[in-house]
Amino acid sequence: MRQVCMRCGMEREGLEVRCKRCGGPFKVEVEDIPFSKNLRENFPYIKNWISLGEWHTPMIRSNNVYFKLDFLNPTGSYKDRGSVTLISYLAERGIKQISEDSSGNAGASIAAYGSAAGMRVKIFVPSTARGNKLKQIEIYGAEVIKVEGSREDVSKAAENSSYYYASHVLQPQFRDGIRSLAYEIVSDLGWRSPDNVFLPTSAGTLLLGVFEGFRHMFNQGIISKIPRLIAVQTEQVMPLCSKIKGLKYTPPEKVTSIADALVSTSPFLLPEMEKIVKEYGDCIVVSDEEILNSWKELAKKGILVEYSSATVYSAYKKINPEGTSVLVLTGSGLKVL
Amino acid sequence: MRQVCMRCGMEREGLEVRCKRCGGPFKVEVEDIPFSKNLRENFPYIKNWISLGEWHTPMIRSNNVYFKLDFLNPTGSYKDRGSVTLISYLAERGIKQISEDSSGNAGASIAAYGSAAGMRVKIFVPSTARGNKLKQIEIYGAEVIKVEGSREDVSKAAENSSYYYASHVLQPQFRDGIRSLAYEIVSDLGWRSPDNVFLPTSAGTLLLGVFEGFRHMFNQGIISKIPRLIAVQTEQVMPLCSKIKGLKYTPPEKVTSIADALVSTSPFLLPEMEKIVKEYGDCIVVSDEEILNSWKELAKKGILVEYSSATVYSAYKKINPEGTSVLVLTGSGLKVL
Repeated sequence: MRQVCMRCGMEREGLEVRCKRCGGPFKVEVEDIPFSKNLRENFPYIKNWISLGEWHTPMIRSNNVYFKLDFLNPTGSYKDRGSVTLISYLAERGIKQISEDSSGNAGASIAAYGSAAGMRVKIFVPSTARGNKLKQIEIYGAEVIKVEGSREDVSKAAENSSYYYASHVLQPQFRDGIRSLAYEIVSDLGWRSPDNVFLPTSAGTLLLGVFEGFRHMFNQGIISKIPRLIAVQTEQVMPLCSKIKGLKYTPPEKVTSIADALVSTSPFLLPEMEKIVKEYGDCIVVSDEEILNSWKELAKKGILVEYSSATVYSAYKKINPEGTSVLVLTGSGLKVL
Repeated sequence: MRQVCMRCGMEREGLEVRCKRCGGPFKVEVEDIPFSKNLRENFPYIKNWISLGEWHTPMIRSNNVYFKLDFLNPTGSYKDRGSVTLISYLAERGIKQISEDSSGNAGASIAAYGSAAGMRVKIFVPSTARGNKLKQIEIYGAEVIKVEGSREDVSKAAENSSYYYASHVLQPQFRDGIRSLAYEIVSDLGWRSPDNVFLPTSAGTLLLGVFEGFRHMFNQGIISKIPRLIAVQTEQVMPLCSKIKGLKYTPPEKVTSIADALVSTSPFLLPEMEKIVKEYGDCIVVSDEEILNSWKELAKKGILVEYSSATVYSAYKKINPEGTSVLVLTGSGLKVL
């Protein structure tokens, strides 16, 4: 499997986290992989899956909308799709100690899969972090390390730790695992592409991962088009939408939106996200009031998600597009009871 | 579909909750249904499924043990298997208002499916009830009614309410929905029966439901034997084990065990449970210390369940039986963060 820098094209040599030439992020070259309806075969670089029962989440229909219940992955979020490929890959290469920076779903997911692989896991979080997700990280047996300072300081501490930096943002095998979500959506629809896919968008792993999956299927003739990818952000944290729509945006010092999983105020992968959304989709901004209303409406349908996931339903109602729409519900509401 | 009283054999006429002759519980006569590997066809009395994405939960292997992750059902517990059949059945019969008594997983599940069906839902709970599961019930839009007095007083209030009593203990279509779990276990194993199935046991719906599924497959030649059904109870609440093993047992006034989903101190379905376990299985008692250790061990494997579900792992380690064992993990640990 070839891995190349998304910015300068340089090939990855080993397990370095950033491109040695330009500091850019790597990606897995998917073009080389023949598509298989036996979905695990699309990840030929994994020999031994450290599985916790991820994938094959339900998709349910309500009128013209499909809800992909990806919060029913084992740790309660879609991040498990990234963790299973990253951790399995690292385990096969003898990595036994990993670090990561996230006090949320990514941290919990990496902690669970890391522990399952028998690794020692250090999760770096802001000193102000608290709440259920932090408890979840600790329960899986990870060591939580609180860092004073900005969110950037937390990342730096994780990257500079003596443990291998298993970053969900930078590691290509994490982002690449999200491809599986695109495959499942198309499989769930009887191997047809939907017209629109709505994605809560923060660091960009979901958007970029899903795009690679659709592009793979399109290039190999499995689907006849790539769906419109609708990135959804909040009024408070909209670095991508502000670029796409030319809106005024000042990154907040502290995120106070109820959508507390959408906190990437200045995402590292912003240039890559911008390119895809400009060509294949759109970006929609929603308010806290809209999110809360959608969250309540979903709960009355029997679907309990975290607030950040309800953003896609607000965005859907706002633009009400023609055709088949898939709304990806990313995080479990059980974490925020 | 025929429904008969499990105690006197009298046929159910309509939607009465108890047998008019002896007050006993009804069951669905499964013998009349030809087994189908298209699993939903084994519930021919449901025409329109009010689905929230239940069923097809993952089963993962660790050495000789299989963990059935049934807490990955949409509301976070196996109860969704009972709710989907009961609520779909009642909705088709025009029921629009339901009552139920449970401050736990059953209450949350009935609330979610009832709301999804457009029903008004009243959940009766003890006046002392609190915690995340109660919040979950309310978020789905159910009305929570607190009742002073004993647990029996709560049940009576629900049964005597003006809403139709959608009891998870008494309604045959609830218990019958649990059959699906037996089918999936056998399907997950390549259409073979496991040797042992470990089940946390409280009111008896899981044990009785799963048994009907295995018996159905055995009678129709799908499997060559019915597995040993190992009911697991706590030292504090062991009405079934005390009968089976001849142990001294006084129902506690208040359940203080960490296994707070196993609270049926004098279950109505005890005679039916006793009969099955005497013929097909065993009953194992575990202590709070054993439960806590198993819970921690599961979490280090990346599996986060509620304490009540960890009981089966304690019981498994205690008797370490030969052959293939399936441990049913019933409730999500995300509810107890």
